[in-house]
Amino acid sequence: MSHQGTPDEQAIKDAKIRQRLDRISRKIVIMSGKGGVGKSTVTVNLANALVDAGKTVGILDTDLHGPNVAKMLGCEEGTLESRDGQNFLPVKVRDGLYVVSLSFALNNNSDPVVWRGPMKIAVIKQFLGDVEWGNLDYLLIDTPPGTGDEQLTVIQAIPEMTGSIIVTTPQDVAVLDARKSVNFSRKLGVAVLGIIENMSALICPDCGKEIPIFGKGGGEKMSLEMDTPFLGSIPLEMHLREYEDIGESTLLKSPESRSTIALLKIASFLDSSIAVSTDRKDLKDTPSCAPSACSTCSSNCSSRKED
Amino acid sequence: MSHQGTPDEQAIKDAKIRQRLDRISRKIVIMSGKGGVGKSTVTVNLANALVDAGKTVGILDTDLHGPNVAKMLGCEEGTLESRDGQNFLPVKVRDGLYVVSLSFALNNNSDPVVWRGPMKIAVIKQFLGDVEWGNLDYLLIDTPPGTGDEQLTVIQAIPEMTGSIIVTTPQDVAVLDARKSVNFSRKLGVAVLGIIENMSALICPDCGKEIPIFGKGGGEKMSLEMDTPFLGSIPLEMHLREYEDIGESTLLKSPESRSTIALLKIASFLDSSIAVSTDRKDLKDTPSCAPSACSTCSSNCSSRKED
Repeated sequence: MSHQGTPDEQAIKDAKIRQRLDRISRKIVIMSGKGGVGKSTVTVNLANALVDAGKTVGILDTDLHGPNVAKMLGCEEGTLESRDGQNFLPVKVRDGLYVVSLSFALNNNSDPVVWRGPMKIAVIKQFLGDVEWGNLDYLLIDTPPGTGDEQLTVIQAIPEMTGSIIVTTPQDVAVLDARKSVNFSRKLGVAVLGIIENMSALICPDCGKEIPIFGKGGGEKMSLEMDTPFLGSIPLEMHLREYEDIGESTLLKSPESRSTIALLKIASFLDSSIAVSTDRKDLKDTPSCAPSACSTCSSNCSSRKED
Repeated sequence: MSHQGTPDEQAIKDAKIRQRLDRISRKIVIMSGKGGVGKSTVTVNLANALVDAGKTVGILDTDLHGPNVAKMLGCEEGTLESRDGQNFLPVKVRDGLYVVSLSFALNNNSDPVVWRGPMKIAVIKQFLGDVEWGNLDYLLIDTPPGTGDEQLTVIQAIPEMTGSIIVTTPQDVAVLDARKSVNFSRKLGVAVLGIIENMSALICPDCGKEIPIFGKGGGEKMSLEMDTPFLGSIPLEMHLREYEDIGESTLLKSPESRSTIALLKIASFLDSSIAVSTDRKDLKDTPSCAPSACSTCSSNCSSRKED
């Protein structure tokens, strides 16, 4: 992995990134202020739900210090292959689902990635420019917590970002940090597609009672206060974590569960209502943004109603 | 807050940091690979437990993107006062407990801190050098998740770090990332004082059954495999989060709970067994490191047994 180059080299890299991203209809960054709220869980499951609905999806894991997406998808053993020694192919999880994560490039998953900002910026740009993503309906970009180098790099490198999804738990401290992510997204001109409240309540597997371990309703309340769409609540269920730990899809293994139903509903809402980035004319199979979609979303598409 | 200066200015700043830290007996960095595992919860409660045991404790919150320590301590309204316009005083939470967090310097807690690495490095160094901590028994340094700028800066700025505490949940993906933190600590020559497993099981408030929502035993198993001390498991209890959200001490409010008992036990073990940094001769009221302590710990103190 190389560092950033001269201004000329950088311009070539940026052009390459744009060329790659032109072939991707919807680019969505998944963020949270606080860690451990389930960004990767949401990313992986939304991706699976979209693929089940016939879409082609890529996942880019930009959490370089703790890249867990591959483990959750059960493709830890994958490697980033290259046909020309310069560009590389994403790891295929199943038909329609591709992933790129730093974990594929590490020899030992116990070794820490001890990198300061500039190195992280360079690697994320490589992931965007040097990966042969091909034509995708969606690129879901999982990020680490916070509003620093990784998030800035992703957003600045993808000027036609479709929007952001902010994940939070209902807990006050998580909601506090999620507000920062909403404001961060807005400051940088990225439409907030919506808030997802994860771990919204736990059902006791013994007595069936609901346990609001991290509280309940904090995400929805915040989305109302901040005037952002609320995409839904995902309950905390044991099997979600269990399937994640063994790299199985909870949607497949537990199709009737409340969390699966919630995830499918969110994916379906996203797919039917968000606007696509229509400012590139060379996109194929990309429907025009429907005005009805624009009335419920706040994407960056050209037909978006101005505030 | 100023950026880093010339090499000469930097040397003066580094000398100032050392001078400040010479007055602090034990400097402990609290880390995790994964976010949301409870670093701040552990930090705040260990600090309260140590103060209850008669110690003077400072907390430095280096999570600049999501500084939640002040909210958890109920001192969100605090401000960093200065007597000379150059150095500032930590916020006093109660007798014996002081805290410094970026949240005290923010006008609006919903505003994101959009900083790249160099700015974060400069601010953390200011927190170490420009804060009049005074004489402390402990400085607990809470960090964001990962092994990047913040952790590197803290460890490189404090060469006589007593050690690190690694917090994890039992979940596989959290343990995977905690391993990275153990190796990071070792690579940088900081003794791992031990692993804490947080959220190790939930007791249903209705039926009393134990629910291993994030699994159980992953932290202890990892500490055995990696040959690091295991400091204990903290169960996931509703009141822990509830008191945290309103800034109350769970130790005070729920003294008989399992999580309080676990936290007190960990604090007592830490206080009685870890070695202190004795390589500075101007420390006052700092007991010599007992050989008995050294046999059970892996600190950096001068009487540490070499491996």
